[in-house]
Amino acid sequence: MRKTLATRHIPRGFRFAATACGLKKKAGALDLALIVSDVPASAAAVFTTNLVKAAPVRLSQQHLGRSRGRMRAIIVNAGNANCSTGPQGLKASRATAETVARAIRCAPEEVIVCSTGVIGVPLRVERILAALPELMRRQAASFQACASMTRAIMTTDTRPKWAAARCRIGGRTVRLLGCAKGAGMIAPQMATMLAFIVTDAAIAPALLQRTLREVTARTFNRITVDGDTSTNDTVVILANGAAGTGVRGRGPGVRDYKQFAAALESVCKQLALAIVADGEGAQRVVEIEVRGAKSERAAEQVARTIANSPLVKTALAGADPNWGRILAAAGRSGVRFDPDCATVWMAGIKVYARGRALPFDERAAHRKLLAPYIKIVVDLGTASRQPGRRAPGRDVSYKRSARMWTCDFTTQYVDINASYRT
Amino acid sequence: MRKTLATRHIPRGFRFAATACGLKKKAGALDLALIVSDVPASAAAVFTTNLVKAAPVRLSQQHLGRSRGRMRAIIVNAGNANCSTGPQGLKASRATAETVARAIRCAPEEVIVCSTGVIGVPLRVERILAALPELMRRQAASFQACASMTRAIMTTDTRPKWAAARCRIGGRTVRLLGCAKGAGMIAPQMATMLAFIVTDAAIAPALLQRTLREVTARTFNRITVDGDTSTNDTVVILANGAAGTGVRGRGPGVRDYKQFAAALESVCKQLALAIVADGEGAQRVVEIEVRGAKSERAAEQVARTIANSPLVKTALAGADPNWGRILAAAGRSGVRFDPDCATVWMAGIKVYARGRALPFDERAAHRKLLAPYIKIVVDLGTASRQPGRRAPGRDVSYKRSARMWTCDFTTQYVDINASYRT
Repeated sequence: MRKTLATRHIPRGFRFAATACGLKKKAGALDLALIVSDVPASAAAVFTTNLVKAAPVRLSQQHLGRSRGRMRAIIVNAGNANCSTGPQGLKASRATAETVARAIRCAPEEVIVCSTGVIGVPLRVERILAALPELMRRQAASFQACASMTRAIMTTDTRPKWAAARCRIGGRTVRLLGCAKGAGMIAPQMATMLAFIVTDAAIAPALLQRTLREVTARTFNRITVDGDTSTNDTVVILANGAAGTGVRGRGPGVRDYKQFAAALESVCKQLALAIVADGEGAQRVVEIEVRGAKSERAAEQVARTIANSPLVKTALAGADPNWGRILAAAGRSGVRFDPDCATVWMAGIKVYARGRALPFDERAAHRKLLAPYIKIVVDLGTASRQPGRRAPGRDVSYKRSARMWTCDFTTQYVDINASYRT
Repeated sequence: MRKTLATRHIPRGFRFAATACGLKKKAGALDLALIVSDVPASAAAVFTTNLVKAAPVRLSQQHLGRSRGRMRAIIVNAGNANCSTGPQGLKASRATAETVARAIRCAPEEVIVCSTGVIGVPLRVERILAALPELMRRQAASFQACASMTRAIMTTDTRPKWAAARCRIGGRTVRLLGCAKGAGMIAPQMATMLAFIVTDAAIAPALLQRTLREVTARTFNRITVDGDTSTNDTVVILANGAAGTGVRGRGPGVRDYKQFAAALESVCKQLALAIVADGEGAQRVVEIEVRGAKSERAAEQVARTIANSPLVKTALAGADPNWGRILAAAGRSGVRFDPDCATVWMAGIKVYARGRALPFDERAAHRKLLAPYIKIVVDLGTASRQPGRRAPGRDVSYKRSARMWTCDFTTQYVDINASYRT
C-alpha cells in the first residue's frame, strides 16, 4: 500500500464518486460511495455465509440473479449496516437502487447495494436519497474520485485500502483496481467484508464468478481478525471490457486466462493483507503456514484455529515467543496428528521439534517478533504407513499445506469494541 | 463462594497438605499440594481432549487403567505444566508418583499426578522430591490443611475456589468437597483447569466414572473464558466410602443415586462458575441460554459460538447492549435457523424479535448489564412443518435448549496474556 493511487491504475470506462450524507457520527465525513461502469459490465460476487444476512446483501443477490450477471453500478453506504431492520430495511435498499438506476438510466436490477456499520438500527434512507444528486454530479474517472470513494466506505478502518494490477491480454493492457474496507468482524467464510474490484478486461459473467470464487478461497477467506463472520460481507467485481480485449475461456493452455486470474489474485491478496494489517488495534500481520498435513482442508483447519486463538494473538501482541500456545491450539483444532512428530518455527527460529522445546535466545526472538510482518510455520509431520511396501514400517509424509493471515490482539481491540455503540 | 471452608465440609477419611517447593516465581509461595484417602477410594477422572497432552495427564491415564479405578492419592504442582518436555517430563511425573507411593505405602499406580503452569520448560522434579517429606508431615484432615491445598494449586487465579455439598444416603450423611483452579483456560502459559472432588460416599468406579462424565458435560464442559483448551485439564473425583454408606446402582427408581448425582452436579457447577467469575480480567459472568433448537447439541453449538465471540465479549466488557453481535455470532455457528423467527433477550430485556430490533431504553439496559451476573437468552424459534396434520402448514416448535457460561473480555485479559513470559 506504499504506492499512491494514480490515474494510470484506473481501468477504463469506470467512474467513481463519494459524498457525505450524514450517516456517520462525525459531521461531514464521507459515507456514501458510487462506482459506475459506462456500459453494462460482467459482474460476479461472493457474499457472507452468515445466516443473518443484511437487507442489501439479500437485494444484491436477487439483482445478480435477475440481471444474469450484467451490472452497471455499485452504491455503498457506511455508518449503518441495514441489518436486522425488517421489511423497512429491504425497502430502503430497494429505494436506493431505484434512485441510482433512474439517475444513470439502467434497470434497478443492474445496481448492487452495499451497507456497512451498526447492526439493528433503522437506516435513514432519506439521507441517502437526498445526497444522490450531489453524488451523481461528482462522478469522475480520476484517481481523486477513486481515492474519495475508498475513504467513504471506511468504518473503524484507520486507512483506505486499495490494490492495483495489470496484465497483457491479446497485445493490450488490462487494468484491475480493487478497494476494500474492514477492520473488525473479520473472518470471511466463503465471502468477506466489503471489497470492490473493477477491470476493463472482457470476460463472461459465469467464468468471472468461478474465478472470483477460487481466488477468494485463497485470499479473503484466509484472513481473520476476530473469528466473527460479518452479516454484510460482500466482494464484487465488475469487468466492462473497455480495454478492448479480454479472456474467453480457461483451461491448461489458456495463457490469457492465467494472467488475468493471477492479476486478480494479486489484487485480492493485497486487499486481504491490508485488511488484516488494519485489523482493529493490530500492531502486526502474522502469516501462519501449516505444512505436512493430510489435506489442504486439514492444514487450513489447524491454521485457522491458531489464527483465532486469543492466547496466541495476545502473546503476539507482546512479541512473546510463546510457542506452547501455538502447539496447544493446533492440538485442539480437531485435526489428528502426533505432537511428537511436529515442528514449530516462529519468525524463522525453530522452537519445538520431536516432542520438546528447543533452546533459543529469548531476547533475539522477542526482537524478531516486534516486526510488522511475522511468519509462524507448523509442520504437523503427518505420515502414513505404507504396509505394502518392501521396507515395512517406512513412513511417507503428507505434504499438504495452507496459509492463513491474522493480526495480533491488543488492548486497543477491546477498547474499540467495548464502546462501539456507546 | 461466600461461605468459609469449615471442618464440617470435609468428607471423612481424607487428608490434605500443601507446601512451597520453589516452582512458582514468588519465593515461599505454596505450589505443591496433596490429597490422600486413608483407604483405596473409587476414582474417576476426565482429562483434556487436546492432542497435546502433558506428561502427568498421560501418566495419570495409565495409572487409572492399571489400578482399575482404585486410588489413594493426588499430588499436584503449580508453576510448571510439565508439557512438551519429552521423555524427561514423563520420568519426572513417574518419580513423583513413586516417591508419594513409598511415603503413603501404596502402589505408584494408585497415585494421580497433576501439573499446571508454563508449557515447554523442563520440570525441576528434584525440588518436588525434596519437598515431599515436609508435605507428608503436614497432612491433616482439617479445613486449614484443605484451604492451603486449594491455594497451592492456583496460578493466575486471584482467589481459591472450592465448593461443598452433602446428601443423605441410607440414613447417613455423605459429604462432597471440591476445589478447582483456572482463571479461564489460561494461566502462566497455556492455562490448566484442575478440579479435585472428594467424597466419603461409597460408589463403584465404573458408576462414578459414568456419573462424572455426565455431570462434567453439563458443568465444566459448558464454561469458556477464551475457547483455548488446555493441555493439562483434569477433573478427578475420589470416593472412599468412609461415611459407611453409598450408592449401588442407577436407574429411574434409585433415589440415593439421584441425590448423590445432584450433589455432585451442584459442586461441579459451583466450581465451574467460580472459574468463569475469576476468568483473567473478567468483570462479570454471562449465562447464555439458547432455546427453541432442534437438539441440545445444536443449542450448545450456538451458545458456544456466542460465548466465544470476541465481539460479544468485548461489548459485554463495556456493558453495551449490542445484540446485533449476538445474532451475528448465532448466524455463523453452523446451525440452521431462520433469523426472522428468532428472539433475543439481554438481561431480561427483549431486544430483537421477528427480524428486527425492538425499542428499549439504552441507558437502563446499560445499567442492567453492569451487574456481576448477566443472562442472555436466544430463542432460535426453529420449527418443523407437520405435513400430515389436519391443519396444513401448522408449525411445531422445537424445544431443545442448552446453557453456557462465559465472562467478558477486557483489556486486562490482553495485558495478562501479552506480557506473561516477558
